[in-house]
Amino acid sequence: MEKEVKVIFEPSGRTVHVLPGTIMLEAAARAGFIIHSPCGGAGKCGKCQVRVQAGKCAPNAPEAAALGEVRVAEGWRMACQARITGPITVEIPDTSLFQAQQQILTQDAGGELHLQPRVRKQYVQLPIPGQHDAGTDLDRLRAAVGPFQASLPAVRELPGALRSANFKVTAVLVDDELIGVEPGDTMAACFGIAFDIGSTTLVGTLVNLATGVDIAVAARVNPQTSFGDDVVSRIQKCRTDPKGLAQLQTAVLDGVNKIVDELLRKTSLDRSRVYEIVFAGNTTMQEILCGIDPSALGELPFVPAFREALECHAADLHLHVNPQAKVYVFPQIGGFVGGDTVAGIVATRLDRSSAPSLLVDIGTNGEIVLFANGTLWATSVAAGPAFEGARIANGMRAAAGAIEKILLDGDVRINVIGNVKPAGLCGTGLIDVAAEMLRMGILDITGRIQSAAEVPDTISAALKARLVEAENGEVNFLLVSGAESATKEPLYLYQRDLRELQLANGAIRAGINILLRTAGLQASDLGSVLLAGAFGNFIRRNHARRIGMLPPIPCSRIRFVGNTASFGAKRALLSTEEKNYAARLVDAVRHVDLSLDPEFQMEFGSAMILPDHELDGCGED
Amino acid sequence: MEKEVKVIFEPSGRTVHVLPGTIMLEAAARAGFIIHSPCGGAGKCGKCQVRVQAGKCAPNAPEAAALGEVRVAEGWRMACQARITGPITVEIPDTSLFQAQQQILTQDAGGELHLQPRVRKQYVQLPIPGQHDAGTDLDRLRAAVGPFQASLPAVRELPGALRSANFKVTAVLVDDELIGVEPGDTMAACFGIAFDIGSTTLVGTLVNLATGVDIAVAARVNPQTSFGDDVVSRIQKCRTDPKGLAQLQTAVLDGVNKIVDELLRKTSLDRSRVYEIVFAGNTTMQEILCGIDPSALGELPFVPAFREALECHAADLHLHVNPQAKVYVFPQIGGFVGGDTVAGIVATRLDRSSAPSLLVDIGTNGEIVLFANGTLWATSVAAGPAFEGARIANGMRAAAGAIEKILLDGDVRINVIGNVKPAGLCGTGLIDVAAEMLRMGILDITGRIQSAAEVPDTISAALKARLVEAENGEVNFLLVSGAESATKEPLYLYQRDLRELQLANGAIRAGINILLRTAGLQASDLGSVLLAGAFGNFIRRNHARRIGMLPPIPCSRIRFVGNTASFGAKRALLSTEEKNYAARLVDAVRHVDLSLDPEFQMEFGSAMILPDHELDGCGED
Repeated sequence: MEKEVKVIFEPSGRTVHVLPGTIMLEAAARAGFIIHSPCGGAGKCGKCQVRVQAGKCAPNAPEAAALGEVRVAEGWRMACQARITGPITVEIPDTSLFQAQQQILTQDAGGELHLQPRVRKQYVQLPIPGQHDAGTDLDRLRAAVGPFQASLPAVRELPGALRSANFKVTAVLVDDELIGVEPGDTMAACFGIAFDIGSTTLVGTLVNLATGVDIAVAARVNPQTSFGDDVVSRIQKCRTDPKGLAQLQTAVLDGVNKIVDELLRKTSLDRSRVYEIVFAGNTTMQEILCGIDPSALGELPFVPAFREALECHAADLHLHVNPQAKVYVFPQIGGFVGGDTVAGIVATRLDRSSAPSLLVDIGTNGEIVLFANGTLWATSVAAGPAFEGARIANGMRAAAGAIEKILLDGDVRINVIGNVKPAGLCGTGLIDVAAEMLRMGILDITGRIQSAAEVPDTISAALKARLVEAENGEVNFLLVSGAESATKEPLYLYQRDLRELQLANGAIRAGINILLRTAGLQASDLGSVLLAGAFGNFIRRNHARRIGMLPPIPCSRIRFVGNTASFGAKRALLSTEEKNYAARLVDAVRHVDLSLDPEFQMEFGSAMILPDHELDGCGED
Repeated sequence: MEKEVKVIFEPSGRTVHVLPGTIMLEAAARAGFIIHSPCGGAGKCGKCQVRVQAGKCAPNAPEAAALGEVRVAEGWRMACQARITGPITVEIPDTSLFQAQQQILTQDAGGELHLQPRVRKQYVQLPIPGQHDAGTDLDRLRAAVGPFQASLPAVRELPGALRSANFKVTAVLVDDELIGVEPGDTMAACFGIAFDIGSTTLVGTLVNLATGVDIAVAARVNPQTSFGDDVVSRIQKCRTDPKGLAQLQTAVLDGVNKIVDELLRKTSLDRSRVYEIVFAGNTTMQEILCGIDPSALGELPFVPAFREALECHAADLHLHVNPQAKVYVFPQIGGFVGGDTVAGIVATRLDRSSAPSLLVDIGTNGEIVLFANGTLWATSVAAGPAFEGARIANGMRAAAGAIEKILLDGDVRINVIGNVKPAGLCGTGLIDVAAEMLRMGILDITGRIQSAAEVPDTISAALKARLVEAENGEVNFLLVSGAESATKEPLYLYQRDLRELQLANGAIRAGINILLRTAGLQASDLGSVLLAGAFGNFIRRNHARRIGMLPPIPCSRIRFVGNTASFGAKRALLSTEEKNYAARLVDAVRHVDLSLDPEFQMEFGSAMILPDHELDGCGED
């Protein structure tokens, strides 16, 4: 087995370890940087340029041709072409990042997408009323900015704003509605926030609506997690506790407002200049956010309250922005296929892929969307919170102290987030250790940890010593001794932890298999598998395949696409056409409800069995 | 001079005094009853039937023909034909009253008006979700009631309402928006409230939106009066006191809510079943009601904030009804010609008159609308609060204890509201006494009260004794001695009180004259003068003419039309077509701003001079 090498990305200094041969674009994605690649990685457009600051990386022929001798000598490479061969430090210039206006304006496959925000500001200098010009304030404003409907709060602001600023004001319009009138010229201050509302994590991105440029990003743990880790526990709380919905709504809105406060504090912007907020989340999160009782999502046949996008005003949700700001909550497909999935399709343009493509968002729920032959199918599976570290004895979230990477060779080698002593195991580490144990024959295909006596002779004495038999006869695997751990307690991987992993793993794979079968496809027909979500970004692709979570296709076809919910939300925030696209997607998607599918249990059972052999084409990762 | 006779209307027992010869329709109007007369008083339609319970009233030929011998013998008469000849008690059946659905449906001159409320309720029994029917709650409801937009609060109610009532619910729609979902069948409970928001008085009418029938009426003094009697003082408060607008808005909303509470208490109705509220008031009242600073109405060129109807939700104004109820605030014409005037045109169909017609609403502000040759002109004059009893030394509102009627013959004869001892003089009494004094030569045309030495010889000693010279040389007129008054203090009509009356009087007449001149008309061209407003309903028409407030046209052309703001608001409440009519009127009316008219001061000065002779055709009243 090849040894992974360290890649440092500047200017952030973010670091990842990848196997030699990994394409730079993928390594960057693993570190959370989505690099601009409009030509699809064909080495033609030259938009994905990065610069090698330290370490070696030989240019290939397309790079030499596209960049020229001087640029190549300066260390510039194309991220879609350059392969990691050894430890390296790479600078990613802002202009190469897949975000902000540049991307919004150019990335659309059809080439027709524009920055088209529903919020419009217009500075006007109105004639001052006089003897033969005593028309109403509203008509005076309309004469300058064109027809609009006026909201009551805007009419309230109007007379004072006009007279305090000598009739020079900035009108704030959302679609064809006047929502505010600001004294003087405030054209430069026009902002919106795109939110990804995850069961576990809330992410907000403050965006300049006039330019499409990101201003700031902030994230927090969803305060609802104190009421339960997964959506099922939160739905249950709403079903059993009369105050449950109100408590959960207050919790998430509190988290959202803390992010808003942080974004505005960081940027010293006035909260009254935030005119739109877009939310994308799963059905349960979106319904609770809006104060809609999600109880019907807790019983068959899992009925959401709404399908189309919901709109209201910021004041309706007590958000800490302009009270008249428009709130747009993503449309949702059904059951547990929510607005985050729709946003994911908007972000990835899945339905414009040339070959059959799969979008997999792995979280407590796994949402899976397949596009093939002009049709979209979507489903969701209950993966459980194993990947978030819950229900794993020594599990934890991917935070400082979490073992996020594990290699087995002569002994156990770990990478800990934050370079501190290990305190627990996060999802990627769990997948790593399972894949490695399976590879070495320490784990059998039923998911049982072998005893030291049962393992192959090739296993080192050091590893054998870690196989500790418990009183119930099960074997547990010692990851970290008490002397090395942050807690001074030894960290074990327990047999029952692997059962949790098998459940999560089996659910996702069964979902993928059923969608493929519904479309009449084989796994090998897939042109690409897009892994979305914060977790998906850090998974080792070969390990995900090794344990059977992903079907056996070449790693080169598996791509990390980052936080698509957040990016899709930003796209919708910046363009009415993107909102219309989301609405069309919801009408077009075929919702495959696995809770009602008799084949799902069978498929799930099969997918619980781990693959018995290493697959081809894993060397890339 | 003929002596007025007493007319009692049953079942209310309301009483008025009218001169012999008065048409019953007019007498009823004076008592506040607007009788249904679709044929325009031609004695043809028979819709205005009333029944004489006591007293004599000979039938005329049309009555005998239309009603037949038996009905006539039973006491039935047509109110448009029957003349009062002596004291009489008359029953007005509900079916003859100009209100409620019957009127709404049939009175429209074009015959096209329908009961067409924007609020619609629909009871549906939805299929229960199942294995092959897991669509969203909203889509399920849409399949039954047709397409709609859903408000967030309605979506919040939906899942619970459906599941608590076994999927049998009533949808509440306003236009194409779902505003509520109620468990079970609540079709029968669908209400709205029409409000007349006067500077002095607030009147609310609770109406069944499904049938158009009035359920209850309630009125209160506008609590804003504690901040000043007229709109000018309230605008001034907003201009000078930073908290002024908030205080005034809170005051009027508090009054409105007290009326809402009273209406609901009287009828034992659930406040959540009130789905629309319509407001009609002058520009200042409407702006303050909505929380819009009216300061610009306090300076030239008197600019209102808005012209078109404003809409919001009941929750925005904290009204004590369904929070999602729609609020509609009447469109307004400009300056001081507000929503109450528009409602007045809607109520009277002024623009469908066959001859030139004038609508005059006499209050603190006098609003005057002229329709002639297909064109509407509207203006407003500051009449001052004299007619409301303010700025009159012994003035008071038309409440218990107010002298509302005065006759002079050998001495002073008065009629006091509530049959109690007199405490002051209200507007109609003020006009009466001025007209009577003018008739008898006690007042000269400049408005000066003559001394006992100056008056004609025909004046009785008793009256002469009431002319009391003050230290400043002015003569005051003793109305009630201290022994007879409620306060034990003598009640005088002071010289300066007459100056206040002249100002009010002159302003209204000048407004009428300028509109007539703008239209190229003489007073004699007027086919009708419609007197609106609570005050207008009680004025003696001949006295209003005698003091020059109204132009010299036959009393038969002067009609009382009641509280047209209230009735117009009700029409708008009951029909989208009426709201559209109001919008068209506002676009069509030509606003004549007298504050900017150089001729107004001249006209006003002339109109201050009282007419020097009795006019023809006054015997009717």
